[in-house]
Amino acid sequence: MLHIEFITDLGARVTVDVESEGKLLDVQRQYGRLGWTSGDVPTGGYQFPLENEPDFDWSLIGARKWQNPEGEEMIIHKGYAYRRRELEAVDSRKIKLPAAVKYSRGAKNTDPEHVREKADGEFEYVTLAIFRGGRRQERYAVPGGNRAPTPATARPAPTRPQPAPARTATVSRVEEEETPF
Amino acid sequence: MLHIEFITDLGARVTVDVESEGKLLDVQRQYGRLGWTSGDVPTGGYQFPLENEPDFDWSLIGARKWQNPEGEEMIIHKGYAYRRRELEAVDSRKIKLPAAVKYSRGAKNTDPEHVREKADGEFEYVTLAIFRGGRRQERYAVPGGNRAPTPATARPAPTRPQPAPARTATVSRVEEEETPF
Amino acid sequence: MLHIEFITDLGARVTVDVESEGKLLDVQRQYGRLGWTSGDVPTGGYQFPLENEPDFDWSLIGARKWQNPEGEEMIIHKGYAYRRRELEAVDSRKIKLPAAVKYSRGAKNTDPEHVREKADGEFEYVTLAIFRGGRRQERYAVPGGNRAPTPATARPAPTRPQPAPARTATVSRVEEEETPF
Amino acid sequence: MLHIEFITDLGARVTVDVESEGKLLDVQRQYGRLGWTSGDVPTGGYQFPLENEPDFDWSLIGARKWQNPEGEEMIIHKGYAYRRRELEAVDSRKIKLPAAVKYSRGAKNTDPEHVREKADGEFEYVTLAIFRGGRRQERYAVPGGNRAPTPATARPAPTRPQPAPARTATVSRVEEEETPF
Amino acid sequence: MLHIEFITDLGARVTVDVESEGKLLDVQRQYGRLGWTSGDVPTGGYQFPLENEPDFDWSLIGARKWQNPEGEEMIIHKGYAYRRRELEAVDSRKIKLPAAVKYSRGAKNTDPEHVREKADGEFEYVTLAIFRGGRRQERYAVPGGNRAPTPATARPAPTRPQPAPARTATVSRVEEEETPF
Repeated sequence: MLHIEFITDLGARVTVDVESEGKLLDVQRQYGRLGWTSGDVPTGGYQFPLENEPDFDWSLIGARKWQNPEGEEMIIHKGYAYRRRELEAVDSRKIKLPAAVKYSRGAKNTDPEHVREKADGEFEYVTLAIFRGGRRQERYAVPGGNRAPTPATARPAPTRPQPAPARTATVSRVEEEETPF
Repeated sequence: MLHIEFITDLGARVTVDVESEGKLLDVQRQYGRLGWTSGDVPTGGYQFPLENEPDFDWSLIGARKWQNPEGEEMIIHKGYAYRRRELEAVDSRKIKLPAAVKYSRGAKNTDPEHVREKADGEFEYVTLAIFRGGRRQERYAVPGGNRAPTPATARPAPTRPQPAPARTATVSRVEEEETPF
Repeated sequence: MLHIEFITDLGARVTVDVESEGKLLDVQRQYGRLGWTSGDVPTGGYQFPLENEPDFDWSLIGARKWQNPEGEEMIIHKGYAYRRRELEAVDSRKIKLPAAVKYSRGAKNTDPEHVREKADGEFEYVTLAIFRGGRRQERYAVPGGNRAPTPATARPAPTRPQPAPARTATVSRVEEEETPF
Repeated sequence: MLHIEFITDLGARVTVDVESEGKLLDVQRQYGRLGWTSGDVPTGGYQFPLENEPDFDWSLIGARKWQNPEGEEMIIHKGYAYRRRELEAVDSRKIKLPAAVKYSRGAKNTDPEHVREKADGEFEYVTLAIFRGGRRQERYAVPGGNRAPTPATARPAPTRPQPAPARTATVSRVEEEETPF
Repeated sequence: MLHIEFITDLGARVTVDVESEGKLLDVQRQYGRLGWTSGDVPTGGYQFPLENEPDFDWSLIGARKWQNPEGEEMIIHKGYAYRRRELEAVDSRKIKLPAAVKYSRGAKNTDPEHVREKADGEFEYVTLAIFRGGRRQERYAVPGGNRAPTPATARPAPTRPQPAPARTATVSRVEEEETPF
């Protein structure tokens, strides 16, 4: 018997009994769809293989897709909206980094110090998840296979370097940081 | 089987077994009426849909309504009294925010840094809950339907902007911050 | 079935199963008499009604009465001795506060920041419990009714304002802060 | 039924079921001998009666005796070596303190702030346990009675005042702070 | 019955029931191979006997071996790559330290203060495990005995002193600090 601890959508601490290890991901999906989360977001964000990005099952971590008023697809997790950013590969003499996709949001002044990462200038952000390298793991995918056929360019050709591009502080930035519910 | 962890009104850590997920909210209501709470208030406060504000069941989070000596209705949560504030919608070039209702109190010097939010000047406050946007969820309502018919103006016409209005530091402010028990 | 988590007198983390909610306070009393505590002292101290002060059952929070070498009655909680202080009612134009009884001790340099409260000058103290306002709750009383007939003056006539009176740093202050065991 | 939470010698979080309260100390001894600990060292160290010092059962807190290469008897707890120090009674006009025996070690730069205590100069130390005052409790003693007949001088005649004596920083200090395993 | 708490590879908090103490290490190995960890890395890193280093079973702490693109063998733990470093014995007038093997990585700016250790200059690092002194414990070894016959020089002849050698900040340093997945 296993037991998994959740924080519910109401913030309560609830443990659910799970019959066997084989059923664990099912239970995570079932309650994750309600917005329940288990454990903390790892420092620096969840790390997943890049190949899992197109059809990643966000319910596994209590998150879900959400389209903002401007039609942009974002990820909602515990009331925060995270924007998708593609990071291009870096291959200089000093640093070698494979391409990645990162879901992050601007930091709020109530975010604890250890989750804030620095970008250009004064801007700080918080990462929910980063997809980079590794080998695809089927168990992370949305069950039933709604994996859209993704053109090669959609994944491995990110075109912007890591520090989140310095967007002008317009309405869309605000929406990203506000809770859409 | 589920198990929910509470902090009782005496500050004890007590877990209660719950037969099934369907009974979870009932159990939260039952013990919440005694002032038991489960989990921490999320940073920035609980987030609920604005449409749930008029008949929100405060027992779900271990809180209850309380009328202060001046006849003002407040919310008591873990010995603190929170005042209701209506925040009007903001629609400037830089920021778009829907109307909201916020329950907050002045910060005490024993409040940890990460729950304090800054208002105008030196004043800092702590938010218990914010009702904004979203779609009404029936399960958050007081059961049995004591939803008072609320005139349209009561909810969606908040008239004051976010930073809590700079009230003069009179008796009522003090009462808000002191525990009425 | 309920389960209550304690820190034992040896500092161990032990959970005790409790048959029903009705037996919970009995279990708290039983283990509290051994010095076991459950949960943390709330920030600012436990809050109880003033009318519960004369016969409060300190075993409910793992504390007990102790008479110091000078014959003064104090409360021992987790190895610290707390002194009883009566706070008179405040009724100025800016502040209205009912009379209260407070159990507090001088802060030690190993006390975390958020439990320290400032008094006059450099002096900092830590509060275990404050009895103020409210309505008496029978379940907080010592069972069997050893409620001593208390003269009216003993409770509701505190004569000293809140910041702990600046006692000269004599032997008795030290004893208050040292563990009597 | 009781349940006690341990941190194992491998750092894992493991809970052990215990049939009844009467068996709790046995279970603590059994796993404590393996170096498992339950709960945190209280701020300022465990507090025990002075009369328990000669035959204290260190397995109760997951510690054990260890003789360092110089033949000095020390206490190992979670990989740290603590040295025994006798503190003489203080009886000045300002402070009255009974004699005590303290087990402490020099602070490491990875020790959190709240466990560090200041001694003379820059030196900081961390206390595991202090034996002072109180009445002997048989249940804290090594079972089977290997209480060595201790000459009166061995216990109650500490000759050095509280701040750890300023030993020159020689090899033995280092060994005290390093893990002997 | 025992119960062990894990953080899964997905960051979830999951408790697994274990029949008896004799099966505990098996369960740790079984789930550790999936990258599940139990408890926190002790401050300063896990401490193991030096003689366990050659065939240490890294699954016991949820870690695994990984060969970086340059062919260097490293240890992966919770998404971080740690490099093996041999520390030579120190035998000066002030310090005596036996030889050791240490697995560490450069600190990231999201690492909390208490895990950062200082090396020469500004460089800070984080230790996963240190193997020093002590007596070999068979239960820490990879089961089935794949203990490679290690030439004497491989273990006890570390040749570099403690502070991680000041490597020029080339590509390999970066890879060490980046997650290989």
